[in-house]
Amino acid sequence: MDTFVLTLDLIGTFVFALSGAMMGVRRQLDLFGVLVLAFATASAGGILRDLLIGAVPPAALSDWRYPAIWISAGLIAFAWSPRIERLRHPVRVFDALGLAVFAVAGTDKALEAGIGPLMAPCLGMLSGIGGGMLRDVLLAQVPLVLRAELYAVAALAGAGVVAIGDVLGLPGQATAVAGALLCFGLRIAALRYGWHLPIALQAPRSPDEPPA
Amino acid sequence: MDTFVLTLDLIGTFVFALSGAMMGVRRQLDLFGVLVLAFATASAGGILRDLLIGAVPPAALSDWRYPAIWISAGLIAFAWSPRIERLRHPVRVFDALGLAVFAVAGTDKALEAGIGPLMAPCLGMLSGIGGGMLRDVLLAQVPLVLRAELYAVAALAGAGVVAIGDVLGLPGQATAVAGALLCFGLRIAALRYGWHLPIALQAPRSPDEPPA
Amino acid sequence: MDTFVLTLDLIGTFVFALSGAMMGVRRQLDLFGVLVLAFATASAGGILRDLLIGAVPPAALSDWRYPAIWISAGLIAFAWSPRIERLRHPVRVFDALGLAVFAVAGTDKALEAGIGPLMAPCLGMLSGIGGGMLRDVLLAQVPLVLRAELYAVAALAGAGVVAIGDVLGLPGQATAVAGALLCFGLRIAALRYGWHLPIALQAPRSPDEPPA
Repeated sequence: MDTFVLTLDLIGTFVFALSGAMMGVRRQLDLFGVLVLAFATASAGGILRDLLIGAVPPAALSDWRYPAIWISAGLIAFAWSPRIERLRHPVRVFDALGLAVFAVAGTDKALEAGIGPLMAPCLGMLSGIGGGMLRDVLLAQVPLVLRAELYAVAALAGAGVVAIGDVLGLPGQATAVAGALLCFGLRIAALRYGWHLPIALQAPRSPDEPPA
Repeated sequence: MDTFVLTLDLIGTFVFALSGAMMGVRRQLDLFGVLVLAFATASAGGILRDLLIGAVPPAALSDWRYPAIWISAGLIAFAWSPRIERLRHPVRVFDALGLAVFAVAGTDKALEAGIGPLMAPCLGMLSGIGGGMLRDVLLAQVPLVLRAELYAVAALAGAGVVAIGDVLGLPGQATAVAGALLCFGLRIAALRYGWHLPIALQAPRSPDEPPA
Repeated sequence: MDTFVLTLDLIGTFVFALSGAMMGVRRQLDLFGVLVLAFATASAGGILRDLLIGAVPPAALSDWRYPAIWISAGLIAFAWSPRIERLRHPVRVFDALGLAVFAVAGTDKALEAGIGPLMAPCLGMLSGIGGGMLRDVLLAQVPLVLRAELYAVAALAGAGVVAIGDVLGLPGQATAVAGALLCFGLRIAALRYGWHLPIALQAPRSPDEPPA
């Protein structure tokens, strides 16, 4: 993995770990529960991506820098949670940043592993949304990605920029930065302006079907 | 993968994607949430199977026909959900069909990968139940497979037919069709006639044990 | 896998299967639901470990002894649940035993697969906590590991003993037994004396952030 992608991956690990740990603190989990949530949120997307492209053991487990970073982020969240909470929307902003960075780094890594330019963005999206999904599933709530405005779409848009850049032979670092900015911007704008995708028309529920 | 197994896999992808997308529509998820549920329901079982037999990257990610199919199914469910709901039990029938097809195709693929005839049906069952389990976990409810009448049993029965046929050297397509029909029939009959497996006797809960 | 590690793995499979099956019985699942929970609780940790170190197909699927054991445990729990419930804290004691045995066996297996002595305990911990996490997620509740006193810490301590013993060249069976006893003892003591890790200070929730 080249240094640039690695750097993105480590940044994503940090901000997702912060977002997971803050959520754990809010739910009154103890120190280790907070660390487990930091690990799960920070690593699940990348581990899933590495498993799917056959890169085992996954970088998040074989490289000591990943645990060093998510443990630090978990401890920071644990120690200074009131200060972090005073920022506006802390979990959602860290989450948006992690989404952007992982979507881009995941696409890059999938392209390096020989995945085609149509599928690589899907893997990038999975890397981006995997951690947050596991975080929410562990807290027994419906994942943000299923409830939120333009969440997976933003990841896919950012990942798409990287894949298109790769096909056109543009410099990888520039397209990665552009893709991450696009994803982050879309996600934050969606939060700020309440952008959302359409919801399907509801049928009246048939009487013999239990509530789904 | 031979054409017959591939065809089964694609059919299973379509009907599971429909079932997941319909569930998303009912829960008022937006368009992309519906697509994520379509993807998760349609692909989780097959991806899990491919990971477990070491076939990476999984077919559901490396073959463009899979995303083409689950995206179509998701869009169809999104656009015509009231019409689909007017069918009786739409989610449950699609779910039963997906279960049957994936159980059979999963067993076939496991046998091809050199898994023995005792374990291959277990992998087939996992392929069959994995997608629906993830769908339900993402919606924060106890998976159907744990609540339902003859769900995993039906998958295992269908998968077993394929494995027995393989041991006896019977033609693969015939046993696949027989297995899928057995699984689908068992599941639908269980729904219709309320067949269910026994529930264990409950002990009075000991007072010092918190509710599980 | 040498016989000693295999034996530990099979013991862990048995007790975790019992714990999962008892939980299923309490939640009034039917026979197959109970068996699915027995399988998930007993096998998820080991399968996850095997996927992460690239040992596919995982032992839990390719070796007939694993299904034989978790099926037996599930049937035992189903048939004699009132008797098992009369033991004090049955689920929690089986769970602690499974945690200890899997943490130790998982670390051993990771070391054998060439994972370094810093990461191997993390894989051991994952093997230990994976099954219980899946059990709780399937029952739509927040995993015990996130709520409980000294759960993952106990697993990590036991796993750490094995890794340190490996670095120092101590005999593997002795350190495995010591690690398992340490983990089990810590977990049971935490339950008995209510030991727990600190909880972070809560910030007053900002008014524009929805409940997490």
